[in-house]
Amino acid sequence: MGIHTYFRSLNELERITRCPGKFKFEEHSVAAHSWKVVQYAKTLANIEEMNGSVINWKKLYEITSSHDYGEIFIGDIKTPVKHASPELRLLIQQVEEGMVNNFIEEHIPEEYKAIFCNQLREGKDDSVEGLILEVADKMDQVYEAFAELQRGNTEQEFVKMYCNALRKIKNIDLNCVKYFLEHILPDMVSEESMSSIDIRKITEEALA
Amino acid sequence: MGIHTYFRSLNELERITRCPGKFKFEEHSVAAHSWKVVQYAKTLANIEEMNGSVINWKKLYEITSSHDYGEIFIGDIKTPVKHASPELRLLIQQVEEGMVNNFIEEHIPEEYKAIFCNQLREGKDDSVEGLILEVADKMDQVYEAFAELQRGNTEQEFVKMYCNALRKIKNIDLNCVKYFLEHILPDMVSEESMSSIDIRKITEEALA
Amino acid sequence: MGIHTYFRSLNELERITRCPGKFKFEEHSVAAHSWKVVQYAKTLANIEEMNGSVINWKKLYEITSSHDYGEIFIGDIKTPVKHASPELRLLIQQVEEGMVNNFIEEHIPEEYKAIFCNQLREGKDDSVEGLILEVADKMDQVYEAFAELQRGNTEQEFVKMYCNALRKIKNIDLNCVKYFLEHILPDMVSEESMSSIDIRKITEEALA
Amino acid sequence: MGIHTYFRSLNELERITRCPGKFKFEEHSVAAHSWKVVQYAKTLANIEEMNGSVINWKKLYEITSSHDYGEIFIGDIKTPVKHASPELRLLIQQVEEGMVNNFIEEHIPEEYKAIFCNQLREGKDDSVEGLILEVADKMDQVYEAFAELQRGNTEQEFVKMYCNALRKIKNIDLNCVKYFLEHILPDMVSEESMSSIDIRKITEEALA
Amino acid sequence: MGIHTYFRSLNELERITRCPGKFKFEEHSVAAHSWKVVQYAKTLANIEEMNGSVINWKKLYEITSSHDYGEIFIGDIKTPVKHASPELRLLIQQVEEGMVNNFIEEHIPEEYKAIFCNQLREGKDDSVEGLILEVADKMDQVYEAFAELQRGNTEQEFVKMYCNALRKIKNIDLNCVKYFLEHILPDMVSEESMSSIDIRKITEEALA
Amino acid sequence: MGIHTYFRSLNELERITRCPGKFKFEEHSVAAHSWKVVQYAKTLANIEEMNGSVINWKKLYEITSSHDYGEIFIGDIKTPVKHASPELRLLIQQVEEGMVNNFIEEHIPEEYKAIFCNQLREGKDDSVEGLILEVADKMDQVYEAFAELQRGNTEQEFVKMYCNALRKIKNIDLNCVKYFLEHILPDMVSEESMSSIDIRKITEEALA
Repeated sequence: MGIHTYFRSLNELERITRCPGKFKFEEHSVAAHSWKVVQYAKTLANIEEMNGSVINWKKLYEITSSHDYGEIFIGDIKTPVKHASPELRLLIQQVEEGMVNNFIEEHIPEEYKAIFCNQLREGKDDSVEGLILEVADKMDQVYEAFAELQRGNTEQEFVKMYCNALRKIKNIDLNCVKYFLEHILPDMVSEESMSSIDIRKITEEALA
Repeated sequence: MGIHTYFRSLNELERITRCPGKFKFEEHSVAAHSWKVVQYAKTLANIEEMNGSVINWKKLYEITSSHDYGEIFIGDIKTPVKHASPELRLLIQQVEEGMVNNFIEEHIPEEYKAIFCNQLREGKDDSVEGLILEVADKMDQVYEAFAELQRGNTEQEFVKMYCNALRKIKNIDLNCVKYFLEHILPDMVSEESMSSIDIRKITEEALA
Repeated sequence: MGIHTYFRSLNELERITRCPGKFKFEEHSVAAHSWKVVQYAKTLANIEEMNGSVINWKKLYEITSSHDYGEIFIGDIKTPVKHASPELRLLIQQVEEGMVNNFIEEHIPEEYKAIFCNQLREGKDDSVEGLILEVADKMDQVYEAFAELQRGNTEQEFVKMYCNALRKIKNIDLNCVKYFLEHILPDMVSEESMSSIDIRKITEEALA
Repeated sequence: MGIHTYFRSLNELERITRCPGKFKFEEHSVAAHSWKVVQYAKTLANIEEMNGSVINWKKLYEITSSHDYGEIFIGDIKTPVKHASPELRLLIQQVEEGMVNNFIEEHIPEEYKAIFCNQLREGKDDSVEGLILEVADKMDQVYEAFAELQRGNTEQEFVKMYCNALRKIKNIDLNCVKYFLEHILPDMVSEESMSSIDIRKITEEALA
Repeated sequence: MGIHTYFRSLNELERITRCPGKFKFEEHSVAAHSWKVVQYAKTLANIEEMNGSVINWKKLYEITSSHDYGEIFIGDIKTPVKHASPELRLLIQQVEEGMVNNFIEEHIPEEYKAIFCNQLREGKDDSVEGLILEVADKMDQVYEAFAELQRGNTEQEFVKMYCNALRKIKNIDLNCVKYFLEHILPDMVSEESMSSIDIRKITEEALA
Repeated sequence: MGIHTYFRSLNELERITRCPGKFKFEEHSVAAHSWKVVQYAKTLANIEEMNGSVINWKKLYEITSSHDYGEIFIGDIKTPVKHASPELRLLIQQVEEGMVNNFIEEHIPEEYKAIFCNQLREGKDDSVEGLILEVADKMDQVYEAFAELQRGNTEQEFVKMYCNALRKIKNIDLNCVKYFLEHILPDMVSEESMSSIDIRKITEEALA
């Protein structure tokens, strides 16, 4: 039915909740998460650019803004499932891509098909833009998990999410990661907290 | 940690929303859905028993009350994904069962392991109890979809859900299905409706 | 209008909130509560059966799954009101039963009336099934209250609910109660907690 | 503990939902309902005063602002229950009053007890202020029910609520009732509506 | 369209959230806030009257019940904005009053215009009623902020709200203020709290 | 405290509701709105580029992703207020900009100040990127209002929002506007609708 179908479908990501099931003080929609990733990525790219990297802003814009569009078709499948077996992870990715491609084939007019394939492709490649997307996506897990722990959420899930996301970030070799770890994260860790968990300590362990 | 971990986890199904993404006038949790399935199944089994069938009530109790427990691990993966390919459907089922088994292995004391394996097994087999569970599960889709259509929800998803569930029900050879189609469904269809869709007509087509 | 009216009404218990008025970190519907009671009862009955008791599974199924159906007519009338005077408690019970009977009279076809009278009767009698229902119902109060206290809820209501429910459970002479007190409750009490209340201590006092 | 306990308890009426169970497009708390009753009563009293009545504004203030305070203790017990039998209605009223009196006895300092007894008394007597309160309370039922019907809610409950409230209003002999029926209600009835119910017609029947 | 438009508009204040944006354990609507202000003011006026003051109850009723009606037109504009500059504060007040006047001009029948101008006027003048309204309005900020801090909310916003409101209250020369500070506030401060903030200390500093 | 303060504040836009007060079938947060604007703008820019325009993607990224950041400080001040008088509109804009500048001054490290001034500036200028932002922002009003009308919302507010947004869009001279009006809007208008309003007709009038 054309690009209208695509625009209209965006609304569905406002109604899909991240991390379903677990008790949370705050619920986040996939749409709001996606917007925050766009924001982090923008600032990370600015930092990267100030340190001499060349950023393809068009690519960065495309891959960050749509990076979770596929969840319209598969929902927020829980991380443990995605990782339950390498075959499953691969197959789920294939299905997600297949459903996105079907959507484009069915709804997007011929002359815009190539553009939508680009927009809705998996963006986390090894380019600087792909890496920034990966950092920004994990940063939002850090922020979400931190806010839960800080308010005294005792679910172990959020300790794991916080630590795993930090570990993934620190292994990415970008100037903006260095800035995040040296200037942004310490401000977060020094915030007042209700948690019985020693956030400073789990942060240091994750970064060790 | 023992059966406490199991009891505690039940709470998560109160926080998992059915049919995520689509606009709905009413949200339903997996826990509430499970309870309604328990209720329908009880009455369906009563009807079946009145018509001369022998019901294994222990088995029926076990399989209906826990039939969606696995969604704690995989969330409400959307129907189209499950059906995107036979391999995927199979693999998702294997993962779900694997995660349930892991849970039992890790948390349930040795002497109760067999019981929990029974309780949390896939119950939709060809026994009368398995068939009643299948009917009850689909009946809740009929009720959910009908309530949305009746209030004027224009999402095509609910037309599909309504018709597909009816088609599956009518192909199950049970006395209680006959009763549902002849005495319960007509009362539903004759309710007042805001829908621009002709519910009577799509019902007849689904049952044709 | 027939059994359809009954099935349709189940939905209302999804919209009735337990313990209205008090501040809670988590809201629970009567439907979700009912489902958890079904689950607890199933496992309690399994434990009881392993210890040599004979369980009437059909009866257990009937009384646990419908045990709060009457709240459709009277809402979740607060416990203190129910107990304000013996006459009131009795009269409220009479009204609830009267309204359930009226419902059956008006809506259920003649041939199913006896079945529905059985299903929707007050189930908490002195049979093993009735006692298991009582334990399962109180266990959900323990779980609900514990989860509030654990997260730092300072409402005294939840201390009372937790202690009263434990006191009622410990006075019921069943093998599954012994198992609950010796193997399940200790795991709960040893969980991490934000509470300024000493949960271990109030647990010991309630069980003393 | 003093008046603080009273002030703090007001918060609970923000969390008690009116008309629990039924499907509604909009939920209303008892606190918000109470505020709207205060507003209607004020305007009704102004109209009454303009027509020559003498209003005791202190009394009107007292009885309208606290008229549902007792629901903190008994919740929003459903209307059909209240009316199930004359004894029950009377007993529930006695319990509500008893619990309010206990509260005052226990928490309110000696020198303010008389004032709180006045404030929290049942206000719907035959004085002009008591009658205005009755009209204002029913007017909010009219507004709530109308808004549901207007949006296409098909629950018969709201038809009954609308008609019953109108019938009670029309039988109260006040100038402000005359104004409401002649000048305010017609504006409501002439609003655009999605309802399949002929609101004009049921209005005329209720007022006949 | 007449007074119906006014009555109908009241509903909008049920849907406007106080203090938008900040994380809160409890959301409050402007309507529920307004009702609590009506309640506090009533008791404050009773206390004042017992100490020999003469209260104009009609005026008190009018100004307290409608004191935030203007937020229907301007929403809950954040306090820092209102105070960002004296011109802005003044202009926002002018706009609010202008929009209220327009509303009256357009919708209220000629013979009631004067009454509505009185009802919807800014009530916080130097009369005893105006001062009581000011105290009651600030008391609700104290209660809202205290309940957040007590539950461990770490947002500095609520510390500021609590302290600023207390400072404004203590500078108002009324007997009821003396009663509040000597008898009500100490009960609040002595409640159990999860906060890492020393509420007693910030209370003393605010009152110093 | 550095960029952390900025990242953390993004969360507040998840909690600010668009169009507060009015009855809506669906609530939208400012964060989710912002994300949809980012998405529309990306596709609009693609269309514009295909028609020969040169897009500064960095600028487009910056201005679209942050275009409502100022609402953290002033909330969603209602459109009628913003337009109540030219002085007010100007002053509100000045205050918003002043508060954003204060935020940057206070929290953003010296070396990133210029970047944040750029990012958080008012982006709706006469450049192609500024115009695309204006179109995308208005398109989300069209989508929000349409979805309400389609479901039978009778609030006149949404008719006005729909028509005004369309009128602003059609007056912007861009190729992507032409595409929207000729290919996307007709698909929207031809969707099934519950509305008693003739959406096709009001669309034609707005575009006339």
